[in-house]
Amino acid sequence: MQSVRRLLSGDRRALARTISLIELAGPDAQKALAELYPHTGQAHVVGVTGAPGTGKSTLVNALAKSYRCRDVTVGIVAVDPSSPFSGGALLGDRIRMRDLAGDAGVFIRSMATRGSLGGLARATADVILVLDAAGFQRIVVETVGVGQAEVEIASAAHSVVVVASPGMGDEVQAIKAGVMEIADVFAVNKADREGADHAVMAIKMMQGLAPSPPSSPSSPSAPSERTGDGWQPPVIKTVATRGTGVDEVLQAVEAHAAYLHETHLYGGRERQRVVRELETILRTTLLARLRARLPEERFQDLVAQVAAREVDPYSAVEQLLRAGESL
Amino acid sequence: MQSVRRLLSGDRRALARTISLIELAGPDAQKALAELYPHTGQAHVVGVTGAPGTGKSTLVNALAKSYRCRDVTVGIVAVDPSSPFSGGALLGDRIRMRDLAGDAGVFIRSMATRGSLGGLARATADVILVLDAAGFQRIVVETVGVGQAEVEIASAAHSVVVVASPGMGDEVQAIKAGVMEIADVFAVNKADREGADHAVMAIKMMQGLAPSPPSSPSSPSAPSERTGDGWQPPVIKTVATRGTGVDEVLQAVEAHAAYLHETHLYGGRERQRVVRELETILRTTLLARLRARLPEERFQDLVAQVAAREVDPYSAVEQLLRAGESL
Repeated sequence: MQSVRRLLSGDRRALARTISLIELAGPDAQKALAELYPHTGQAHVVGVTGAPGTGKSTLVNALAKSYRCRDVTVGIVAVDPSSPFSGGALLGDRIRMRDLAGDAGVFIRSMATRGSLGGLARATADVILVLDAAGFQRIVVETVGVGQAEVEIASAAHSVVVVASPGMGDEVQAIKAGVMEIADVFAVNKADREGADHAVMAIKMMQGLAPSPPSSPSSPSAPSERTGDGWQPPVIKTVATRGTGVDEVLQAVEAHAAYLHETHLYGGRERQRVVRELETILRTTLLARLRARLPEERFQDLVAQVAAREVDPYSAVEQLLRAGESL
Repeated sequence: MQSVRRLLSGDRRALARTISLIELAGPDAQKALAELYPHTGQAHVVGVTGAPGTGKSTLVNALAKSYRCRDVTVGIVAVDPSSPFSGGALLGDRIRMRDLAGDAGVFIRSMATRGSLGGLARATADVILVLDAAGFQRIVVETVGVGQAEVEIASAAHSVVVVASPGMGDEVQAIKAGVMEIADVFAVNKADREGADHAVMAIKMMQGLAPSPPSSPSSPSAPSERTGDGWQPPVIKTVATRGTGVDEVLQAVEAHAAYLHETHLYGGRERQRVVRELETILRTTLLARLRARLPEERFQDLVAQVAAREVDPYSAVEQLLRAGESL
């Protein structure tokens, strides 16, 4: 494909066009991805997640600027589960564009909700591949929200930065939602506010309390007993609006990247990512195939019967699977 | 099944045992659900969602007490995506149990992460069915977090309460994450704090800005032009710790329930819920079946090839699907 060849040679307009093509998710999208795929696997993917209001976006922008000062190219994928109605993604894009405009070493793309969680996770993974093939050295995936989907999307990254901030009501509650185990770096942003030290302490306490995650088979001699892979996530105070602490976050991410490669944990993370990606595509594809094979009336009939409590959901699924097989 | 019969006759210990059985998700679980299912469909399911730190749990407890004052039985399902490591769910349970202990008209169950989002959504739906069959008149599903998964789980409810609070940094950001469209009632909790009126105004402004969702086919003459189904979500100030405004929230939920039945929108919500539930079960089952048919080596081989960038993910999926069909 011409647009793919142009993209690989560094054409930024071809990049935007390829992403749009891929978001359409048609057969051309799959062809483009197949062509791009051998050129991927070079970028280090950094997930940034945390509760709303912690200043995640500001930190991501500051981090991107820090990378640019070191001549490292950065792609930013902002996963925003706000509905298309609210227009949050677009507004955010515009504000950011103003900030980092005119620099070909940065590319920002917002991903909004598209029907289902599986759809969003899949589209995000695809856009990461495109940016990777286009040669961006670091790809920052920012997920708004602290839900499990956001955590899953962020945890597909090689290194995960969890952002907290003081004065969020209950800091512990704000960071507990499944993120303790996926964090490689903690940033306590808005650290000039009251309660920053308390937030740092709360995180450190939770690090101490959290039992080891199941230890990775590829790290037989973990140096620390506390975390299964031997990496002790640092807790860094930042004031992203003033750039304070941002370089420390960058250095922590780079140290983690180096650590993954030295310990050969990198390969394990890659395989995990691939398993998740294949399963996501498989689930969607298998359901779509079954639905396409089944007459819509048959499906809606069963829906009505389940709604009327005449058939239970699991028996309905059995019927649908049998019907799908016999067609 | 004996435990199911006991549950249907009001035995609370049988209820706890049946829920545990269902959480194991084995063949016995499906048998139990099939037996229970004809007895479900009586409860009104209320979803409560919002950002961490808004005081959701306190509001849910206060709401449960309010229902109990009116002799309405309440089941609470607290969906907590925090990992089993952090122990958040258990702690929350204990605090709540102390508060509502000794009242057979209330039952509280926390649901923590179980591997995947699909798994959590499915288990939550199943526990709701059990509580419904056990005769609880209102079932409150509280989801911690503001992620899309939590929104999806909450939106499976008949009525959805979105909780916000002032001083969460950026109120608009805290409530924008896809929740404007699913809210039937807004509660601005901690309304004794500074900024409560600002939060109320921000929500009302967003209500005005949000275009109509696609109008429901079952409401041909929607009285309001703003919302497709004609219901204008009220915005209620609450101080859950003192019980202020809680009765108003209860009344708003009941008014919404009555509205759904009067306008026949209830049937549409039920059908939507069933479609979502069937698709969730189908996706999981179809993937499990394929994985069971395929030799694990074959799958891991492909994973390694994708990780090594020799095969792209979509081509790998094609190969897996073909292999699954030929077996």
